[in-house]
Amino acid sequence: MALLVEKTTSGREYKVKDMSEADFGRLEIELAEVEMPGLMASRSEFGPSQPFKGAKITGSLHMTIQTAVLIETLTSLGAEVRWCSCNIFSTQDHAAAAIARDSAAVFAWKGETLQEYWWCTERALDWGPGGGPDLIVDDGGDTTLLIHEGVKAEEIFEKTGQFPDPNSTDNAEFKIVLSIIKEGLKTDPKRYHKMKDRVVGVSEETTTGVKRLYQMQANGSLLFPAINVNDSVTKSKFDNLYGCRHSLPDGLMRATDVMIAGKVAVVAGYGDVGKGCAAAMKQAGARVIVTEIDPICALQATMEGLQVLTLEDVVSEADIFVTTTGNKDIIMLDHMKKMKNNAIVCNIGHFDNEIDMLGLETHPGVKRITIKPQTDRWVFPETNTGIIILAEGRLMNLGCATGHPSFVMSCSFTNQVIAQLELWNEKTSGKYEKKVYVLPKHLDEKVAALHLGKLGARLTKLSKDQADYISVPVEGPYKPFHYRY
Amino acid sequence: MALLVEKTTSGREYKVKDMSEADFGRLEIELAEVEMPGLMASRSEFGPSQPFKGAKITGSLHMTIQTAVLIETLTSLGAEVRWCSCNIFSTQDHAAAAIARDSAAVFAWKGETLQEYWWCTERALDWGPGGGPDLIVDDGGDTTLLIHEGVKAEEIFEKTGQFPDPNSTDNAEFKIVLSIIKEGLKTDPKRYHKMKDRVVGVSEETTTGVKRLYQMQANGSLLFPAINVNDSVTKSKFDNLYGCRHSLPDGLMRATDVMIAGKVAVVAGYGDVGKGCAAAMKQAGARVIVTEIDPICALQATMEGLQVLTLEDVVSEADIFVTTTGNKDIIMLDHMKKMKNNAIVCNIGHFDNEIDMLGLETHPGVKRITIKPQTDRWVFPETNTGIIILAEGRLMNLGCATGHPSFVMSCSFTNQVIAQLELWNEKTSGKYEKKVYVLPKHLDEKVAALHLGKLGARLTKLSKDQADYISVPVEGPYKPFHYRY
Amino acid sequence: MALLVEKTTSGREYKVKDMSEADFGRLEIELAEVEMPGLMASRSEFGPSQPFKGAKITGSLHMTIQTAVLIETLTSLGAEVRWCSCNIFSTQDHAAAAIARDSAAVFAWKGETLQEYWWCTERALDWGPGGGPDLIVDDGGDTTLLIHEGVKAEEIFEKTGQFPDPNSTDNAEFKIVLSIIKEGLKTDPKRYHKMKDRVVGVSEETTTGVKRLYQMQANGSLLFPAINVNDSVTKSKFDNLYGCRHSLPDGLMRATDVMIAGKVAVVAGYGDVGKGCAAAMKQAGARVIVTEIDPICALQATMEGLQVLTLEDVVSEADIFVTTTGNKDIIMLDHMKKMKNNAIVCNIGHFDNEIDMLGLETHPGVKRITIKPQTDRWVFPETNTGIIILAEGRLMNLGCATGHPSFVMSCSFTNQVIAQLELWNEKTSGKYEKKVYVLPKHLDEKVAALHLGKLGARLTKLSKDQADYISVPVEGPYKPFHYRY
Amino acid sequence: MALLVEKTTSGREYKVKDMSEADFGRLEIELAEVEMPGLMASRSEFGPSQPFKGAKITGSLHMTIQTAVLIETLTSLGAEVRWCSCNIFSTQDHAAAAIARDSAAVFAWKGETLQEYWWCTERALDWGPGGGPDLIVDDGGDTTLLIHEGVKAEEIFEKTGQFPDPNSTDNAEFKIVLSIIKEGLKTDPKRYHKMKDRVVGVSEETTTGVKRLYQMQANGSLLFPAINVNDSVTKSKFDNLYGCRHSLPDGLMRATDVMIAGKVAVVAGYGDVGKGCAAAMKQAGARVIVTEIDPICALQATMEGLQVLTLEDVVSEADIFVTTTGNKDIIMLDHMKKMKNNAIVCNIGHFDNEIDMLGLETHPGVKRITIKPQTDRWVFPETNTGIIILAEGRLMNLGCATGHPSFVMSCSFTNQVIAQLELWNEKTSGKYEKKVYVLPKHLDEKVAALHLGKLGARLTKLSKDQADYISVPVEGPYKPFHYRY
Repeated sequence: MALLVEKTTSGREYKVKDMSEADFGRLEIELAEVEMPGLMASRSEFGPSQPFKGAKITGSLHMTIQTAVLIETLTSLGAEVRWCSCNIFSTQDHAAAAIARDSAAVFAWKGETLQEYWWCTERALDWGPGGGPDLIVDDGGDTTLLIHEGVKAEEIFEKTGQFPDPNSTDNAEFKIVLSIIKEGLKTDPKRYHKMKDRVVGVSEETTTGVKRLYQMQANGSLLFPAINVNDSVTKSKFDNLYGCRHSLPDGLMRATDVMIAGKVAVVAGYGDVGKGCAAAMKQAGARVIVTEIDPICALQATMEGLQVLTLEDVVSEADIFVTTTGNKDIIMLDHMKKMKNNAIVCNIGHFDNEIDMLGLETHPGVKRITIKPQTDRWVFPETNTGIIILAEGRLMNLGCATGHPSFVMSCSFTNQVIAQLELWNEKTSGKYEKKVYVLPKHLDEKVAALHLGKLGARLTKLSKDQADYISVPVEGPYKPFHYRY
Repeated sequence: MALLVEKTTSGREYKVKDMSEADFGRLEIELAEVEMPGLMASRSEFGPSQPFKGAKITGSLHMTIQTAVLIETLTSLGAEVRWCSCNIFSTQDHAAAAIARDSAAVFAWKGETLQEYWWCTERALDWGPGGGPDLIVDDGGDTTLLIHEGVKAEEIFEKTGQFPDPNSTDNAEFKIVLSIIKEGLKTDPKRYHKMKDRVVGVSEETTTGVKRLYQMQANGSLLFPAINVNDSVTKSKFDNLYGCRHSLPDGLMRATDVMIAGKVAVVAGYGDVGKGCAAAMKQAGARVIVTEIDPICALQATMEGLQVLTLEDVVSEADIFVTTTGNKDIIMLDHMKKMKNNAIVCNIGHFDNEIDMLGLETHPGVKRITIKPQTDRWVFPETNTGIIILAEGRLMNLGCATGHPSFVMSCSFTNQVIAQLELWNEKTSGKYEKKVYVLPKHLDEKVAALHLGKLGARLTKLSKDQADYISVPVEGPYKPFHYRY
Repeated sequence: MALLVEKTTSGREYKVKDMSEADFGRLEIELAEVEMPGLMASRSEFGPSQPFKGAKITGSLHMTIQTAVLIETLTSLGAEVRWCSCNIFSTQDHAAAAIARDSAAVFAWKGETLQEYWWCTERALDWGPGGGPDLIVDDGGDTTLLIHEGVKAEEIFEKTGQFPDPNSTDNAEFKIVLSIIKEGLKTDPKRYHKMKDRVVGVSEETTTGVKRLYQMQANGSLLFPAINVNDSVTKSKFDNLYGCRHSLPDGLMRATDVMIAGKVAVVAGYGDVGKGCAAAMKQAGARVIVTEIDPICALQATMEGLQVLTLEDVVSEADIFVTTTGNKDIIMLDHMKKMKNNAIVCNIGHFDNEIDMLGLETHPGVKRITIKPQTDRWVFPETNTGIIILAEGRLMNLGCATGHPSFVMSCSFTNQVIAQLELWNEKTSGKYEKKVYVLPKHLDEKVAALHLGKLGARLTKLSKDQADYISVPVEGPYKPFHYRY
Repeated sequence: MALLVEKTTSGREYKVKDMSEADFGRLEIELAEVEMPGLMASRSEFGPSQPFKGAKITGSLHMTIQTAVLIETLTSLGAEVRWCSCNIFSTQDHAAAAIARDSAAVFAWKGETLQEYWWCTERALDWGPGGGPDLIVDDGGDTTLLIHEGVKAEEIFEKTGQFPDPNSTDNAEFKIVLSIIKEGLKTDPKRYHKMKDRVVGVSEETTTGVKRLYQMQANGSLLFPAINVNDSVTKSKFDNLYGCRHSLPDGLMRATDVMIAGKVAVVAGYGDVGKGCAAAMKQAGARVIVTEIDPICALQATMEGLQVLTLEDVVSEADIFVTTTGNKDIIMLDHMKKMKNNAIVCNIGHFDNEIDMLGLETHPGVKRITIKPQTDRWVFPETNTGIIILAEGRLMNLGCATGHPSFVMSCSFTNQVIAQLELWNEKTSGKYEKKVYVLPKHLDEKVAALHLGKLGARLTKLSKDQADYISVPVEGPYKPFHYRY
């Protein structure tokens, strides 16, 4: 696929796999709208006043059907949008096609190379001579990273005239980032400076991206305000937990059709994602073993009847391995070599470095048999037995299935809409400094409330007397900041 | 697709969708073999003595990857095999291709018309001038039905010279059956008599087919011995229960991506299939409501915390409807018209008459929007809201996903192999009359035992003293016939 | 406690712990009546016609509050009743007092010696010169055993003049049985012959007693008809399963207050009782390991995510051990010596020989520390660590808690009432030979139906057309005999 | 029981129910020690250095077996201790006796009147002429309240000479508090001032007490530093959640023996306590309906398949009602009058005002039938049907059972020990102002770590490289402050 930008008849840029899938995408978007009451309520509430009039939003977030509903919520509130995916396998091509045809500039397809991935990211950021973006929706922080690295390189270039050197790093992906910045520098040595000056703020979707933001805040390098959407309760305690509880078995089933009942499943990490994964495996009839570094999370696992051991303890007896840690180097080549024949190894954490894919790929004599896209059997020469790797070690729920379902993403994405509105509305008020913020609790509660009706739930109302007794307003918020849910 | 039989280079007949999928099928068959220890153990135990040498087996059973491993177990024991699917949507085309290329005569593809379906069935039964089949593997009883109806028509024809009249029935499918028999009569008025005289017996896979067999036994019309595989414990209490617990959510997810958590799911019927379905929905976070006619099953549902109501009570508030009854006319047009917008309606019972598809299709002004194959949205003119029908009302786990997973099918299919061996070995002994039999308990226990090792389970051994105390042999069988598990 | 029979003011015999608890017993009986809809419905349906007029019923069944409601159902239908408990620890003294005061002759108290236990049994059988009983309600078969052994001894005595010799057996309990029979012989050498001639039949409550009955049927020694109540679906699949699921944690909590979550629980046996126990432990947050001899039950356990191992594999790492096998010699002294300090060992199977109490008691240097009644810590001299034995190895749910709850016992006991009615009504018809029978399915379904209203369940009604389609009567029964539920 | 203080032979004051239960208490304390690894580890780690040498600690916390192990941990670290219970029904008399005899001054018995309750509280605070306490362990905040109210009254008295007027309030309990303060004032008008001047700080156990503390902090009236133990993760996410999951069914079973399976249970409130209660009821086979005011918690409930409705929606169809809100006026007389016969109503929140006991008690013609202590049936004259109230509306798990099990209380109480140590060690450093603090995360993690070994859990160790990658120390703490677990 040559990397040429295409244009719709209306002149909007895009690059997707197959525009003929747009109708199919549109049908699924319409189904998803019924499942995403928070986003639809946002359209009703805010649409008439067009609050994003004039705002240019760049998004880097899995280009799925659900994201399509988010994008069209942003555009229906007046925004202009350019979008890329934040993972090479996570795009749903019919969703990308429908949005590209109907609503926004999309650069995304399922199965990008890393080179293509960063090309898409760069395209999504490029608003042409008019400048932009004003706002960023980020997931994992790659767009934010590109701007920050770009600014850093431009500063060095300005001082020293030196271009960034892709060979200065061993990291294959970072090499590409440096190359892109280098090319950009040649065209416009202030490209990223202009961007960061214009950006009103970013709203970040996931744990991994948030971690990066807090690190930048800590070392003073953060260039614009950020809203941590991940730590809204209606995000981290919902999509991380219930989303993965749904999409882990979905991905396993679609990729391997393997019976989960009766199997031994190892879940590495027992945070919100790990809790969802462990619950799903247990409920499907697997025996679940958790690995953890944090004694509190480990103790939670034991209280649910899960065994807590180290990977070494169980590596040769388990059938399914799922990494959820957000850390790196969790399942290494040496682990994989000790596994049972056809053990399934997959990752549902944001980045693909939880599993030592490099070690596996470069192991002498190893053989890769692609059963179907995103499902590979790797055979070791030593034993002639193999393991099944899903989605090449990347997010298996998006690579092998369709990611989290619409309803739970509606919670997450309604937070995104609110965060973007907040940044945009306060763009001149000085309310937000170059720091990381979470949304106030009453907005978090509002997101939840918007989703209850669809499920037939009926809330109890506090009396004034009761509200006074527990010292909260009748209308909420109901909990102190430190409340854990 | 013109209904022309094709031939492999070796001269074996077949009709499949796309022979180029054979390699993919082979890869998945190899994965499945690792998950089907019972079948592989049968190959090891019986293969060397080639017990099926000379046996011609016709099978009518969902042509999936798992069935492929069953077929190749039969052929590796010496049988010659012809196969069709027992459901128009259940064939996995890559499985069919691999088997057609490598092992047996296959007539099956995903998405047959009813006309094509019965053509395939008739092909699978046609062993040419040499005669056959000797044995039948049946699922739902359509092959058995065809022979019985054929014999009946031939008897009438012999007595009266009258052909069967397709217009004598309103049932669209039975019209086709009569047409096929009529055509057969013209060619050979003893076609089905020859068949029934040769058939040593049938082993029947599922509840629905077994019910038909017991009816024929009761009215004295059964033409050859039958082994009821469905009621082996390792079948009915395993694949019906644990298989559906796995494949119902699988089908829902693949077809609709809808979040199951938080939804209200109605499961019609709380037999083994219903129990598996209800468990799956509950575990995924749905609120489950069961409908039942049998007070015992209803009481079981309540003991699991499930609400038992009638369909009328909940039709307008539920999100997901699953029929599992084995009965007909469960969800009628009038029910569907009262449902919420985008309520999902599906069937996991054997036949497609649980849902009133005819009523739906012929409702004036109704509009069918196909989201993707097997996922249709039907919009009612009265309300302009719609419901989602999966797999056109047929088995949704096979139509929308890949059916039960290999491990549990290994239990079922090992029973099939044992049943076929039993019928064949006793073909001249008179052990089996024209009745319905179940396998003896020690064989049932053997099937289970063959599957424990794969899961790392270790059985306790009875001492002689303990065995005497409970009056069972040390090696089993351990339970009385009436034991319910 | 001297074994003197006492009399109420109305002249009815009894022997209970403390008659002053009768009021308390009455209050709890009244509560239980609300939870036992099947028994109360039996009173309404059958009470007016007094079908048991003239019938003398002896019962040997845990003298609990629930049994009190059963007894008063029998008396409200016209029967005269004498009762004893079938376990030395299972009597609830307030229940015994209320019944003794108000309704029937009761001989039972919590904490009988074995000597006292058989004295009570013999009292319950002794209807004085008028003769009796006419009917027996048995649980475990001790009453039936006493009559059978009595008859056997009388035959020998008649032929040889020889009394049974208590020293002919090592079994401490059987010694007592022989002594009692010996004493009886001295008084009346036809005592048990007269009894067996009069007994119309016995209805047996539990697996263990049923096993004995089938053995007697097999060897032709059964002296009167027996109805196997245990294998009514509404008994074995309800009280064994759901009753134990309730009463196992109840007993553990009352006896030890130990936190179940996080612990490793070993459940020996995965029959109906074991399934209930394993479910309870899993749900409470324990990690459950099952031991099994039967590969089918073992495979069921794995499908629920439970690990199946041998006792030897886990004896030194588990925290809680529960025997449910109905077999003997499950947990032996050598096992107990290897357990962790304060491991809890208990039995919920009918007899107390699942745990090697004799081995424990006679282990040199072992020390017994009674924490409270039914909760003993046994300390081994070798390690100075101890284990906790509940209810001295007897039924822990009755010894340490109050047994199964009323609702599920209402199912079991309604079967008892129906069985007793059936035996009595058919006493002269010859319908029942000296064999073991189960109740017909329509009565089983009726028992279930009587319990649904209390839970707010609403059954679906079959149409005639549907009933014909599946070949059942509209009113049921709905399932074939071999159906497993 | 006359309120006379008694003395041990060694001269230590006490007032308990029955000193002869001390041996029994000691046996259960020894069992509990094995289940409380955190407290025992604290004894090993800190005991040798006697850090509490010279410290006088007053505790007001359910005087149970678990609390006994806490008290003896404090004394084994060098403290002198006086103790009362914080609930009139929660004392376990054998625990109180053992502690009174062996370790500390105890004023507590099961079934205190409110008058007695406050007498006990006042006794526990009275260290005589030497002064004290130095530290307070509080649960619900009654001890803290007494001092604060005392100080307030003394200030008014000093200014105006006026005594507090018990008739100034309608609240029966607060009347008593004012009386006690009034009496104190007569003896020593600076009694509470001296106390508050000496108190180094309080560590508060539960949500309700913490809420009071934050209110006092907010309005500037807090008189000494407070550590909020409740919001340690190893407290609120453990004992509130897993403790109640254990002790709610325990209390229900002991009080009523009712079968939980099949019933409809309403859980009012879905905080940590409510989550534990709902999980317990669901797992026991009940159908659970949640009432909530907070949309986030409500949405969590739906994700677990629980129905969210208002109390009014379900009041007449549910069987079991549990209040967990920490608010008042949840179940009112009008609700109770609409309930089914023998509906069970209980409270597991800290205070007894969740259920309108006053309304019930004063309803004309209502009849109270005490089944057994803490289990009352209240019969309405209108319908002659009744409801079952547990523990007179107070904490049912402590009133009807034995409260949370040892293991989870070991987590909570290890936090208490650490909090007390922290306050005492920093008494002169000025680290703690008159504010509310939570324990630092590394101590929270330490508490968890101390409990893993007992359960056989094995933690994974971070490599330095991994720790750097996620920016945490290798040894923890591993999570940001806002992490929710």
